[in-house]
Formats: sequence, C-alpha cells, structure tokens
Amino acid sequence: VNQVWIAGAGMTRFGRRDETLPDLMAEAALSALADAMIEQPDGLVVAAMNPEEFTGAGNYGSLINTHLGLSHVPALRVETATSSGVAAVYTAFAAIASGLHKTVLVVGGEKMSHMATPRVSEIIGRSIDPHERSYGTTMPALAGLITRAAMHRRGLTLREISQVAVKNHANGARNHLAHFQEAVTLEAVMESRLVADPLRLFHCCPISDGAAAIVMTAEPAEVRIAGIGQGTDTIAMRYRNDLTAFVATQTAAQVAYRMAGFGPERVEVAEIHDAFTPFEIISLEDTGLIPPGKAGRATLEGETALDGRLPINTSGGLKARGHPLAGTGIAQLVELCWQLRGMAAGRQVQARVGLAQSIGGLATNNWVTLLEARR
Amino acid sequence: VNQVWIAGAGMTRFGRRDETLPDLMAEAALSALADAMIEQPDGLVVAAMNPEEFTGAGNYGSLINTHLGLSHVPALRVETATSSGVAAVYTAFAAIASGLHKTVLVVGGEKMSHMATPRVSEIIGRSIDPHERSYGTTMPALAGLITRAAMHRRGLTLREISQVAVKNHANGARNHLAHFQEAVTLEAVMESRLVADPLRLFHCCPISDGAAAIVMTAEPAEVRIAGIGQGTDTIAMRYRNDLTAFVATQTAAQVAYRMAGFGPERVEVAEIHDAFTPFEIISLEDTGLIPPGKAGRATLEGETALDGRLPINTSGGLKARGHPLAGTGIAQLVELCWQLRGMAAGRQVQARVGLAQSIGGLATNNWVTLLEARR
Repeated sequence: VNQVWIAGAGMTRFGRRDETLPDLMAEAALSALADAMIEQPDGLVVAAMNPEEFTGAGNYGSLINTHLGLSHVPALRVETATSSGVAAVYTAFAAIASGLHKTVLVVGGEKMSHMATPRVSEIIGRSIDPHERSYGTTMPALAGLITRAAMHRRGLTLREISQVAVKNHANGARNHLAHFQEAVTLEAVMESRLVADPLRLFHCCPISDGAAAIVMTAEPAEVRIAGIGQGTDTIAMRYRNDLTAFVATQTAAQVAYRMAGFGPERVEVAEIHDAFTPFEIISLEDTGLIPPGKAGRATLEGETALDGRLPINTSGGLKARGHPLAGTGIAQLVELCWQLRGMAAGRQVQARVGLAQSIGGLATNNWVTLLEARR
Repeated sequence: VNQVWIAGAGMTRFGRRDETLPDLMAEAALSALADAMIEQPDGLVVAAMNPEEFTGAGNYGSLINTHLGLSHVPALRVETATSSGVAAVYTAFAAIASGLHKTVLVVGGEKMSHMATPRVSEIIGRSIDPHERSYGTTMPALAGLITRAAMHRRGLTLREISQVAVKNHANGARNHLAHFQEAVTLEAVMESRLVADPLRLFHCCPISDGAAAIVMTAEPAEVRIAGIGQGTDTIAMRYRNDLTAFVATQTAAQVAYRMAGFGPERVEVAEIHDAFTPFEIISLEDTGLIPPGKAGRATLEGETALDGRLPINTSGGLKARGHPLAGTGIAQLVELCWQLRGMAAGRQVQARVGLAQSIGGLATNNWVTLLEARR
C-alpha cells in the first residue's frame, strides 16, 4: 500500500445556508484545491447521503464534476449513511494506494435546512433497520434508548453528557465556520426541552447545511493519512449484544491503529462523532483514547477541553460546528489538518497526531482515521 | 497495480419480481459466493441507484451485509446512476489492487416494477441535468433527440435500430434469466407504439427488477479483469459538441485498453448498454469494436448476431435480459464470465476476451471493462 497524503483542505460555513448543494460543494472543493495548489485532480469522489430526497437531484458524481468545470474528471459517489464522507476518503485512499490515481479531490456535504424537521427526520431514518423503523423508531429515539442503557449499566450521568455540549459549544464559539458560535451553560443544556428521554435539545446536533473537501495525493504533503479503518455492525439494534458500546467503532479503531503502526497513546487531538452528546463519551472509550468507564469523569474534569490533556472536538463537533451528514466526516479531517498544520487560529492546540471517528447510521458503518503531521 | 480476478458470478432472473431488493441481492450474492466457493469475503461493495426512493430504505451497505449474515464485513455503497454496478466493481478493483482487501463481493440491483411508470421515470430522471429537467425532459426524450441527430448526421436508419431489438430478443429467448424470453419480428418492433419520436416501445429497455453479483479476488481464478476504464462527460446535454457519439464511452475504452495492453481487435464477445437500441450502434463505434459509421450495416448483416463475427449482447442486453439499473453493469460481467468459462448453455460462443460497456445517466459516467479467460 502506497502512502497517501492530504495536500489541501477546505470547508464552507456550516448552518442554515441558502446556497444549493452543488454551490456549497464547489465552495469547499475550490477552497481545498486552492490550498493544495492543484487545478485538476485525476479523480473526484463525492459523498452525499441522500441528495435525491433532500434536493431532488441525483447522479451527483456527474453533477458535481460538471459544476466544477471538471466534467472530464472521473467521478464516483460513495455512501455509508452519516459516515459517507469518510467512505469517500477511503475510496480515494484505495485509488491512490493502488496507483490508479495520483491526486483525488474528495468533497461531501448535505443540504437539509429548507425542509421541515419531520421530513428531514424521516429521510435520515431510512438508515434504520426497516423492521425497527416500522414501529416508528427515529434516530433520537434509538439514541435515547442507548443513553438510558448506558446510564443504567455504565453509570453515565446527565451531568456528563451535558458537559460535552458545554465544552463543544465553547469550542464552536472559537470557530467562525461553526453552525453555533455561542457558549452555553450546563444549566441551559440540562433545562432545554426534552427530545427523546433522557436526551434534551442541547444533547442533540442541529440540522446543518454545508460541505467540506480535501485533496489527497501520492506526493508527500504536510499531513499523512497514517491509518484508516472501517468497522461494521448489524443494522438491527435488536441483534446487538451490547447497546452501550459501538463494536463498529472498536473494529474501525483496531484496523486504523494496525495500519498506522501505533496506538491511541500517540493521539493528541481528536474529532469525535457527537451527533448525540453521550456518543462522544462512548466513542472516546471505543477508540481506546480513554479507558473504559472513565470518559464521563474525564469530560467533567476538563481533560477533553481545549486546554485539557486531550482536546476533543476542537471544531465544536457535530454538536456546535454542525452536522451536514456526508460533509461531517470530511470536516473532521479538515479540522485535524488545520490543527496539525498550525492553522486553527483561536483554538490551536499542540498536536502531531490526530484521530477522527465517524458514525454511519446508528453505529452500523463507522470509521476511524489517523492523521500525522510530516514535520 | 496487482492483478484482479473474478472467482464467482451469479444473478437472479430479471423481470417483474415480488421479492424485496435485499432478497434479490442476497439471491445473486449467495449464488456468486457459492460459485467462488467462498463463504466470507473481506469486503462488500453494494450498488443501487436510488433504493431510498424506489424502496424506502437506505444505508444499503449495512442493510445488505446484515441481510447476508455478514454484518461484520465492511460494506460500502457506490453510485454513478445507471452504471453504478461497474462503479462498485471499480471500487472493489482498487481495494484489491492496493492490497487493502483480498476478496470482495460486489452486488448490485434495483426494485422498481411495483411503482407506476411515471414515478419510475421521475426517479430515473434525477440523473438528468436539473436545468434541462426543469423543461420536462425525460431519459427517453433525450434518447429520442440523440437518435434523430444520429439519423440526420450519421445516416442511422430505423431499420438498423429495430434490428438491434430483433437480435437482442432472439438472444434473450435463449437466456432463462432474461426479462423477455420471446423473439420479436422487425415489423413488430417498427410498428410498436411511439414512446419518444423516433423511438418506439421495442427500441426501449423495460423496467426490470433483479440483482447480479461477482466475487473478485487477488488469487488467480478462471477470469481476469484485464482492464477497467471510466469516462465522464458534462451532465448538461446543451454543452456537448456532438450528440451522436458518447465521449464518456470513448474515454473509458481508451483507459481500459491501455490498462489491458491490447485493443478492440482481441475482443470476441461484448455486452453493450442498449437501454435504447440506437445506443448499441453508437457504443459499438465508441468502443472501437466496429469502425465509425459501420455498426448499423454490420447489425443488419448479422455480424453482431449470436452466430456472427462479433456476437453482441448474447444475454439479450438491456433490451431483453432487462435493466435493473445498478444490477445491469454487473450482469454484463456475469454474462461474459459465463461465456468465457463455457457456461452459457444455449447461447455459447467461442471467446477468450470479452468487453462490457455501461452507461451512467445520459452518457455522463460510462465504463468499459475487459475480461480475459485464464486458459
């Protein structure tokens, strides 16, 4: 396997955006290409979870290469539900590692905020097992179930999952591209309205529009993809042995660490999939970044804060930076690139190795990526 | 780039099917795995063009690995409109060529026949440029436009495009998995009802359900993927210089021949994307299998018939075998595997090298694959 590098990174502001999805993707893509100082990649991989239902248009590989003025550049679309962005990165990784391409542009995003929330929820719900969905299950309902189980069996507390929101909003307040750029108090989180017991509004990520892009190359650049791993688990929650840990993340982390040749001990900054704030605590343990049963307390003690031992979601995470589905996994890598290159003005941390963890569906198709600064 | 082989192939009967799409995909996948004598692949790539709108379910990588009892096998979904099946094959090819995986199962299919035709047409139409679609354009309308242009500028005749249907129905009559297994006369084709002038019903492929699968390996098997190439063109028909040839096919063929190290002269059998019968004639010339301007006459003279010099669409093609969108590109490779391995009972031809050509959207994202028998 040849080495693969990230030569450029870019993203739009996340939030409610009036632009079309092709315009958002073009903004992110052109920014990444400019950063990489590359005009024409050999290939393009596009990630969008469900542009057909969210925007009415399909054939997104061709739509986006045409929109970028690069209609002759071979383009694919890749999808693994909410982790589609990283699946696209993996597809580009394989194309470069195999020598089929030298330079691949990866762009992902989603446009949803123009729709009523129940319709957005219905479309996102298509990634739930159809049988379980037939009972009216939604993503927040499943997340609530998992949170209750974790409170009961692992001693997770409401204070811990609320502190994740406080921390990530504080980070988002330092990110001019974040959906939410305002700090929130623990009280405000714990008193926000109930969404799916015990989850309240401020435990849940928003519905965001936006796009993110990276340029991947066979030529050495400032940041290397040291490892990338995928893990999967049954789409049917009722078949799982344990609701309080995600096997798909654990597998993805093992694969990524094995490829990188190092373990969690070298990771100094991480972007974690906090679509619901308890998932940050679960995922910190699944990735081995924090020992089992310790991530809640570590969060309360500020270990994962911007000035803590292991800063988590310096971007604001899905909670505050926002979650435009297929854009999210790529945005995590954009944030890590900026951190590793010393470009995260206002929220810069000291780090040579970063980890990104992305969840597809209700932890059915997860990814862990390890980035390493060259210097 | 490591060599990549096809160790197993399988498909369902195409046509109106009552089974769900996961059941159809499982039937094809299990048949390909049994043919390869492999129980567990390292990876799974799923192709479906728009299962969300056709069936209401998404997250298809996870849905299908779970349905196959292989929920721990990493799965992706890949999409390039109607050529999605080959895009999935290419993704698996890169994973094996790079050494990331040793054995990958690729399965593609679609389920559409339960819906009213106008709704199917609307969903398929999402792969047309949104601006052009805003005028009410449909795929048959664009194909009619291209056919009229080819008649005017290249001398294509109605008799020629009708003979493609006669030939492919004759082949389908020898394929027990084909959607249509009955021969048709030239008169019946030319007198069938008008769909989009000058195209009549029998010039157009049907709406088919079905799935197809192959198992790809790093270990040598009976059939090798000698070359695979992708070509793209602007999604906006109004930006094209020429309506009567598909640049995307020409590019894909060049890339595939370059990888294989040989040209069209070695091809002895081919599966061509005849979603509309004039596309078979255009594509035979775009792939270099027949010189420019000669494919119509060659068809009339029987050169592309089962007993001709260069048998085309021995399976019946999209016209008669059927066209379950993302299943089609894989089904083409299944047919070629069976021909190259001497397993095409009732329609067997003598061939060591086969070519498959797949069209995504209105020729925005096309593929050419070259298969070679090992012996």
